[in-house]
Amino acid sequence: MWAKLTIRTSTKTELVDITTQVQEIVQRSSVRDGICYLFIPHTTAGLTLNENWDPSVREDIIRTLNKLVPQAGDYRHVEGNSPAHIKASLMGFSAMIPIRNSHLLLGTWQGIYLAEFDGPRQRNVWVHVAPLNQSP
Amino acid sequence: MWAKLTIRTSTKTELVDITTQVQEIVQRSSVRDGICYLFIPHTTAGLTLNENWDPSVREDIIRTLNKLVPQAGDYRHVEGNSPAHIKASLMGFSAMIPIRNSHLLLGTWQGIYLAEFDGPRQRNVWVHVAPLNQSP
Amino acid sequence: MWAKLTIRTSTKTELVDITTQVQEIVQRSSVRDGICYLFIPHTTAGLTLNENWDPSVREDIIRTLNKLVPQAGDYRHVEGNSPAHIKASLMGFSAMIPIRNSHLLLGTWQGIYLAEFDGPRQRNVWVHVAPLNQSP
Repeated sequence: MWAKLTIRTSTKTELVDITTQVQEIVQRSSVRDGICYLFIPHTTAGLTLNENWDPSVREDIIRTLNKLVPQAGDYRHVEGNSPAHIKASLMGFSAMIPIRNSHLLLGTWQGIYLAEFDGPRQRNVWVHVAPLNQSP
Repeated sequence: MWAKLTIRTSTKTELVDITTQVQEIVQRSSVRDGICYLFIPHTTAGLTLNENWDPSVREDIIRTLNKLVPQAGDYRHVEGNSPAHIKASLMGFSAMIPIRNSHLLLGTWQGIYLAEFDGPRQRNVWVHVAPLNQSP
Repeated sequence: MWAKLTIRTSTKTELVDITTQVQEIVQRSSVRDGICYLFIPHTTAGLTLNENWDPSVREDIIRTLNKLVPQAGDYRHVEGNSPAHIKASLMGFSAMIPIRNSHLLLGTWQGIYLAEFDGPRQRNVWVHVAPLNQSP
């Protein structure tokens, strides 16, 4: 079963921490050793992992992406959100995280982030937790 | 079984829509709820998802990537295609898309794209469709 | 079971080839047709695939990323490694590679790389090899 997370973003560009919600799905699954799959069905928001401690890291990521792909530019798409589409492709739309002993096998400083580039909006993330296949 | 898609690209840099071919593999698999895995075995082409409606979005993505990693530059690799290698790494080489009710669980505006950065060439994409594991 | 690779990086920014170690895990698994999952539990190092032949390609990738996200800049994070966090997010933290006939289904020129952006350090990569699910 694919579980749907619904996340309300609050500004134009931000990294929203969804680690707790994903971990809750992992715990409800009662999978001990497995894989957590994440997918975001949008084109102006992506998924990434990064530091969960100092929020200035997230700020630096957003500010640097906004500098690399500036809002004002020679874009053809008339909706004005081409930079959001480009930044979402740079982050990516799917991710996979190991599960061990019923917990996401994240590094000490890793959190899971929805990378919003054209908010504020309501966004969805699909999550699936699978037990490991045993090798034959 | 891994299915191989063969795609003929037609220019140096472009996003080629492969959504229909991937969806056909999903339908042939008769998997109802599952996961679609995609992998591109190249180093100067990647995979991404993005808007399937206004083609100017794809054009803006390509033009912005070409601006970020310009063709002319102080590159060491003598074949002259270092920018293509770099842009492919920015897009990524593997992706995962949920399947529900026998369809790719893409967002309304999402399409699947082969990101060609050193064409025109014949490219391959490996696709596998797996049913969901049931949690114990 | 998730297997842990431990890799000692030797400089600040580099692409370290881990293809051989991953292939060894694939061979030990005796999985014939399957999927190899990779995950890096760090926030200043990522995973990518790219050319395994001419080392100048890796050098060009690193030099271009360092140019796009320069070490000196208007960053808020006081540890001084914000550029490493950003470049890691651009490369990504998880990857999936098909397995066929007991081998990674890599392209001729593809190698698997740990992308170090804040070394030298000891890094881990989690690897799991799963046989293909059979469609019902």
